Amino acid sequence: MPDDGRLWGGRFASSQAEAFDRLNVSLPIDRRMWPQDIRCSRAHARMLGAVGVISSEDAAQIDAGLEQVRGELESGGFEFAPGDEDIHTAIERRLTEIVGDAGQRLHTARSRNDQVATDVLIYLRERCDAQGLLLRDLVLVLIGRAEEHLGTLLPGLTHQQHAQPVRLAHHLLAYVWMLVRDRERLLAVLDACRECPLGAGALAGVSFPIDREMTARELGFSRPAPNSLDAVSSRDALVDYLHFAAQLGVHLSRLGAEIVLWASDDVGFVQLDDSFASGSSMLPHKKNPDAAELARAKAHRLAADYSGLAGTISGLPLAYNKDLQEDKAYLFDAVDTVELLLPATTGMVSTLEFQTDRMRAAVEGGFLGATDLADALVGGGWTFRRAHGAVGALVKALADDGRGLADATPTDFAAAGIEGFDVTLLGPEAVVESKKAAGGTSRAAVSAQLEAARSAVEGW
Amino acid sequence: MPDDGRLWGGRFASSQAEAFDRLNVSLPIDRRMWPQDIRCSRAHARMLGAVGVISSEDAAQIDAGLEQVRGELESGGFEFAPGDEDIHTAIERRLTEIVGDAGQRLHTARSRNDQVATDVLIYLRERCDAQGLLLRDLVLVLIGRAEEHLGTLLPGLTHQQHAQPVRLAHHLLAYVWMLVRDRERLLAVLDACRECPLGAGALAGVSFPIDREMTARELGFSRPAPNSLDAVSSRDALVDYLHFAAQLGVHLSRLGAEIVLWASDDVGFVQLDDSFASGSSMLPHKKNPDAAELARAKAHRLAADYSGLAGTISGLPLAYNKDLQEDKAYLFDAVDTVELLLPATTGMVSTLEFQTDRMRAAVEGGFLGATDLADALVGGGWTFRRAHGAVGALVKALADDGRGLADATPTDFAAAGIEGFDVTLLGPEAVVESKKAAGGTSRAAVSAQLEAARSAVEGW
Amino acid sequence: MPDDGRLWGGRFASSQAEAFDRLNVSLPIDRRMWPQDIRCSRAHARMLGAVGVISSEDAAQIDAGLEQVRGELESGGFEFAPGDEDIHTAIERRLTEIVGDAGQRLHTARSRNDQVATDVLIYLRERCDAQGLLLRDLVLVLIGRAEEHLGTLLPGLTHQQHAQPVRLAHHLLAYVWMLVRDRERLLAVLDACRECPLGAGALAGVSFPIDREMTARELGFSRPAPNSLDAVSSRDALVDYLHFAAQLGVHLSRLGAEIVLWASDDVGFVQLDDSFASGSSMLPHKKNPDAAELARAKAHRLAADYSGLAGTISGLPLAYNKDLQEDKAYLFDAVDTVELLLPATTGMVSTLEFQTDRMRAAVEGGFLGATDLADALVGGGWTFRRAHGAVGALVKALADDGRGLADATPTDFAAAGIEGFDVTLLGPEAVVESKKAAGGTSRAAVSAQLEAARSAVEGW
Amino acid sequence: MPDDGRLWGGRFASSQAEAFDRLNVSLPIDRRMWPQDIRCSRAHARMLGAVGVISSEDAAQIDAGLEQVRGELESGGFEFAPGDEDIHTAIERRLTEIVGDAGQRLHTARSRNDQVATDVLIYLRERCDAQGLLLRDLVLVLIGRAEEHLGTLLPGLTHQQHAQPVRLAHHLLAYVWMLVRDRERLLAVLDACRECPLGAGALAGVSFPIDREMTARELGFSRPAPNSLDAVSSRDALVDYLHFAAQLGVHLSRLGAEIVLWASDDVGFVQLDDSFASGSSMLPHKKNPDAAELARAKAHRLAADYSGLAGTISGLPLAYNKDLQEDKAYLFDAVDTVELLLPATTGMVSTLEFQTDRMRAAVEGGFLGATDLADALVGGGWTFRRAHGAVGALVKALADDGRGLADATPTDFAAAGIEGFDVTLLGPEAVVESKKAAGGTSRAAVSAQLEAARSAVEGW
Repeated sequence: MPDDGRLWGGRFASSQAEAFDRLNVSLPIDRRMWPQDIRCSRAHARMLGAVGVISSEDAAQIDAGLEQVRGELESGGFEFAPGDEDIHTAIERRLTEIVGDAGQRLHTARSRNDQVATDVLIYLRERCDAQGLLLRDLVLVLIGRAEEHLGTLLPGLTHQQHAQPVRLAHHLLAYVWMLVRDRERLLAVLDACRECPLGAGALAGVSFPIDREMTARELGFSRPAPNSLDAVSSRDALVDYLHFAAQLGVHLSRLGAEIVLWASDDVGFVQLDDSFASGSSMLPHKKNPDAAELARAKAHRLAADYSGLAGTISGLPLAYNKDLQEDKAYLFDAVDTVELLLPATTGMVSTLEFQTDRMRAAVEGGFLGATDLADALVGGGWTFRRAHGAVGALVKALADDGRGLADATPTDFAAAGIEGFDVTLLGPEAVVESKKAAGGTSRAAVSAQLEAARSAVEGW
Repeated sequence: MPDDGRLWGGRFASSQAEAFDRLNVSLPIDRRMWPQDIRCSRAHARMLGAVGVISSEDAAQIDAGLEQVRGELESGGFEFAPGDEDIHTAIERRLTEIVGDAGQRLHTARSRNDQVATDVLIYLRERCDAQGLLLRDLVLVLIGRAEEHLGTLLPGLTHQQHAQPVRLAHHLLAYVWMLVRDRERLLAVLDACRECPLGAGALAGVSFPIDREMTARELGFSRPAPNSLDAVSSRDALVDYLHFAAQLGVHLSRLGAEIVLWASDDVGFVQLDDSFASGSSMLPHKKNPDAAELARAKAHRLAADYSGLAGTISGLPLAYNKDLQEDKAYLFDAVDTVELLLPATTGMVSTLEFQTDRMRAAVEGGFLGATDLADALVGGGWTFRRAHGAVGALVKALADDGRGLADATPTDFAAAGIEGFDVTLLGPEAVVESKKAAGGTSRAAVSAQLEAARSAVEGW
Repeated sequence: MPDDGRLWGGRFASSQAEAFDRLNVSLPIDRRMWPQDIRCSRAHARMLGAVGVISSEDAAQIDAGLEQVRGELESGGFEFAPGDEDIHTAIERRLTEIVGDAGQRLHTARSRNDQVATDVLIYLRERCDAQGLLLRDLVLVLIGRAEEHLGTLLPGLTHQQHAQPVRLAHHLLAYVWMLVRDRERLLAVLDACRECPLGAGALAGVSFPIDREMTARELGFSRPAPNSLDAVSSRDALVDYLHFAAQLGVHLSRLGAEIVLWASDDVGFVQLDDSFASGSSMLPHKKNPDAAELARAKAHRLAADYSGLAGTISGLPLAYNKDLQEDKAYLFDAVDTVELLLPATTGMVSTLEFQTDRMRAAVEGGFLGATDLADALVGGGWTFRRAHGAVGALVKALADDGRGLADATPTDFAAAGIEGFDVTLLGPEAVVESKKAAGGTSRAAVSAQLEAARSAVEGW
Repeated sequence: MPDDGRLWGGRFASSQAEAFDRLNVSLPIDRRMWPQDIRCSRAHARMLGAVGVISSEDAAQIDAGLEQVRGELESGGFEFAPGDEDIHTAIERRLTEIVGDAGQRLHTARSRNDQVATDVLIYLRERCDAQGLLLRDLVLVLIGRAEEHLGTLLPGLTHQQHAQPVRLAHHLLAYVWMLVRDRERLLAVLDACRECPLGAGALAGVSFPIDREMTARELGFSRPAPNSLDAVSSRDALVDYLHFAAQLGVHLSRLGAEIVLWASDDVGFVQLDDSFASGSSMLPHKKNPDAAELARAKAHRLAADYSGLAGTISGLPLAYNKDLQEDKAYLFDAVDTVELLLPATTGMVSTLEFQTDRMRAAVEGGFLGATDLADALVGGGWTFRRAHGAVGALVKALADDGRGLADATPTDFAAAGIEGFDVTLLGPEAVVESKKAAGGTSRAAVSAQLEAARSAVEGW
């Protein structure tokens, strides 16, 4: 080993340049994977001992040494050395300090390439498990808020304009179904993590009689990865995760945008709890929906993580290329973002104060019953296009006049060619109740939907 | 209907400005969905007739009229009118020309929003089915080429440098496993297409006693979408597809980059068949791997489609917003790209002429046995780190001298502290055979892998 | 020439496979560049004649032949042949049909690589010129609308909430400055188009005594590109354009989002003119701001074009690689998008009906004067932090009570520790007038800004 | 102020939830801007004193206090408090601890919004200055290496295949011109930083008689930003920087990919210096071009930063929205990436050992003179297309036979219909010398190019 502390330096005459080191070092990024790395190394050493590639004494020494390293890392007592370019180097270096020669045998029959690929998948699996629970928390809060507000009506929007009245429960449940789909994506990521790269070596497998089934099993995988080249060069599971994160990001972004809108002075459908709002440094009256705005914003960061990693892998010949080291910067950024967003969103939603009086006022004005008026004409034998045209004309006349549908007089109706119409059918309750088919806004349909949502989340 | 041909214009006093029309029109994009739109409308009309929302006569007239429209579109005889802003308007306009009043009843109990969302999912399902077969073709070709080349060795690369010898079959199978995973993503897309939006109306359901189970079943869905707001505003299945396409793009990009490299003068591991190569307009000797280069390039286009659509949806409040109309530009671009790339790649790979003599020459030079030498020393009791260091020193001495491992003399070994070593263990065959564990390069391991790959693709 | 119509096929024994052709063909994309290609070829042929590489008779024949081809393309009479893989091949093929041997001399001393790179830059320069005028139209409309509304006040927002009153003129001018910066980016693109690739050949220059200054000058460039490898492999000017387009997209997206918000029922600050609004197929009362929504959405498409092209070029060794052919798909998509968006936005803004009464009502309620109250206390000697705290407490008390600042009584003020305050200082006019510094909201400041904006746009 | 340490909390009854705080806090990101924030605050306070908004005693106290805070931050002695959600809060909190009441006056006549926007532009300007020097270092190294290798020939590539011989100097200079253009982009960023946001307040300006010219001048800007809404909501200069960074990333990525290729066993045109190469943990013979691979990879990260920020800003109504806080995550990531990449690339290039013998061998084989042969036939009166076809046939015959152009016999020439040809014209030196026009490969043309490159970099 040369003086510069290269852990593997046989063919090198000189140490690394500082400008290169600064670019190359990944310790600040990958140090969070120490628990997975130690777990992976212990399983590897035990397997090497079991199949006789190293002696059982060496295996035991390594195991005890790694337990000590684990303790040091957990307690914060671990001291990094200048040559520790990544967490794996640091752990192996420290192990060798502790147990001597046996430590130098740990890397038998493996490479950084399969080791790191294995560590990352274990890490990712753990984060998926944790994030499944965070997702569940948010879904349960949304369902709970929906149950509270089965009877609350608000304007449903198209093109950000009042279109038809809906139940608040119905609106909140729309987000539940998005998150239910996100959970399916999370399960797909877990499925994509089921094959263990360990044993793939640098790219071609290893020339020792290792037992890949044993390490795969012990590390919680379903089976060894079937092809060594693919095992060290694939980042598919990570991109799958970034897809999950980006789609979740889209959904939380929409919810965030909606809360920003609802919390605005002009809409006023919610009050944020003080615990989820910020003030302004200059404007004393402001109560800002920062969490909702950040949820809106961070979808773009998650999508950027996706496109950054997909772009990085594209065009790389097999097998391992250093470019792949960039994977963790994207992965960890997304993991952290999701783990910040979900609890903040859950807390924000659970503490929202819905301003049901403002919602009520909004559903009573305007033209929210116009479509039901057209439908009623169709029920009376009109073609839909004729009905649509007549109601459009009525709306135009009223709107030009600053009036809403509730203000329409028989004269107005007659002017649009509509006669004998029962205006009570256009009230918000009548309108929402008329949508009786599955997925509609009637009380029965939304109650059934609530039950389906509860079922969907059972057993997460 | 006003003079400007707005199909629904009741409330409008004037026609649309030309600059607005040009931006708004989506016909050139969405016209390809005419078969799905007609299928969707026929199912809708039949259902309306079955439940009595329209008369059975009207239903029959609509059905016959749509059959005629279908014929006109198929034969190229359909004439688009200036006001046809999208394919849906065009079809409904033409239907009404043909069947009169009945045609004006077709849009009863539905909206463009649920109609288009349904059309797109049917379209996407069909493309997924077709692309599954294209994927299968490529996988079978790769497996076939792998079977031909079980005995062919070439240098496996890390960092684009010769690392260890591998079997060409092993190398080609790495791509098979990538594509097997892509198939799983494709199945996930199909799964994401299982809920039928039809019946969600504009956003809130419809006020007629429709039978959503009936239309869902008839259109090949598993069930109606559970929430009307979500049904018209979700583009999840499309983003899932773009994820499939982007990952497939990454894999084909890597394969393309590899073929570009292999076809280069310096590597020379393949000759492209003339039928998959281009010439140069100026350089008469060139035989260019355009298909491989385009495969390399188009991964970025697919990733851009992904990030474009994810970005577009982010931050949109429920339910439908016009922004969502952009979805098809991304979707169709990706669908077309995949359907260009897969057959071209399959054809290119199936006609590649592998230059096995150049591969052979490459595996015999250099230092491809260096790791096995270190492993052998470990077998003799050295620690791995000591063995790694000694072999590194030997490599350095030889490389400084312009020699490879096969040129090492006993003196060279001795100078590196290595004694009594059987150099025949470092020959390429010995090296690949020594990787006996699952996923490794031994003949038995690769044969088992071939069988597993054949099984994986059965039943696609 | 072989039977398959390869224009250059000397070394090929067979024709191209159909699957490859379909992937490879770029004619549908690049055919729009025919005017630039003909101009470029004519300049090239004239130069070849001038320096004697071809005879003046050949040069004259080529020139006349290209004039005929130009006429055919312009009139729509040009017939494409099956082998025309791109517009350049088609033109050269047709030229040779018309003028025979002389046509076969046109490609002397050039390559597709320098030819296409030159065509694209000419095309891009022309689009930049045209788009500069479109930008100017929008800027002038914004300035005009601002002049109309110097006296109109509306709430300025932070965090999408009412923060402080501003002049509508001030608000519209904010967009003017964004567009002024976009114009600077457009000029930078033009600057990036100043070097002529023609003469770079395939990659290394050409072995004829060509006069690159002559063609560069004739084609409107400042000078020949200084390095042949860079000339054929650089796409910098295109990426610069995509940056311009993406930034413009961001700005129009913000304006679009704002108009969507302003047109919503809850805000109601604008009415869209009927000529820039759409109806709904199902909801007869809807008047949808589609153009504004599409402006909001298309920023993501432009950013995707940027990241797609940047990703494609990354990692490509010098010089020309086929991957670069993808450049035009991104460029043309962005060019078309910008040319759809700008006129539609200009038309929409010029016809917006501002609802000044609703703006007025909005500036009179709430707490828009809160900051000025705090500032007034500072004027009275309080520290800013103390003033901010006291006003915050006053706001809280009023808001809990459903009241605004205008409703505050002396008792309310006293409860917050504020005394002797002249509430007339908190009226909207007083508040906007108090911001007298440059860039602020006082009438004088905004008038000065209007004048500066007018100056900025002079001479575009 | 409530107990939780909200610096501005007047209207809030409770503290912030932990889940919200974790999402909202930006201190770990923005703390690096402390020097800019202190500079900005000192200029602000001095101006407030100069115009009499605060007393000169207060101004002096603030100035001295900020000097003390600066010292604490520089020395590492500054202690952050739990409530310090960003660096600006931390500094103001500490200032107030030190100087009491005067500290509470610092935030008079400004907002976080204009303050942060100003800090960021100052920071960005400084980084641009520093990065201009880093760019210059790389350009000078490339020019130096080019001067060393004016006489070295290597194969120029198209489609990654040997196309025509070029001078290594010419090849290296291609990168110089890319970087010269990057420098122009950097200057455009500096230009985009010329307007000072300070004084824009939260969004509408401030109601004190501030002197914006004074602060702008003192902080190194050209003038105050002309519109307060635009000043606090624009992130244009940052996106411009990300464009610079992404384009630089593309260029360094291409150079990196080229060095990876050149360092490969198959090409072997360079040896990396040990100080810029890494070993392998498992393969003792490997010498990996990690720096070049990371340069290749990080272009995608920079492009992701671009698209992430552009996506985030899109669709945001004026003026400030919290989403904009995400800007610094993208900006700082790009700044750091550029500052890692440039010195590492400079060091790597300056220490590359070019293997001129392998380059020489490569230019002598194959068909690098084929185009010149065709050109020579054109010189003899052939049309270019006929010459191209004949040479193509010759190449095919030779290649099928495993021979290169240098092996062609008079019989081979005759079989292709070529007679009386002087083969010495096809030697590499003759070929490169024949490209005499500007930008070509002749010694004179490349020497002129070297001089132009030297001039271009003068005065950076």
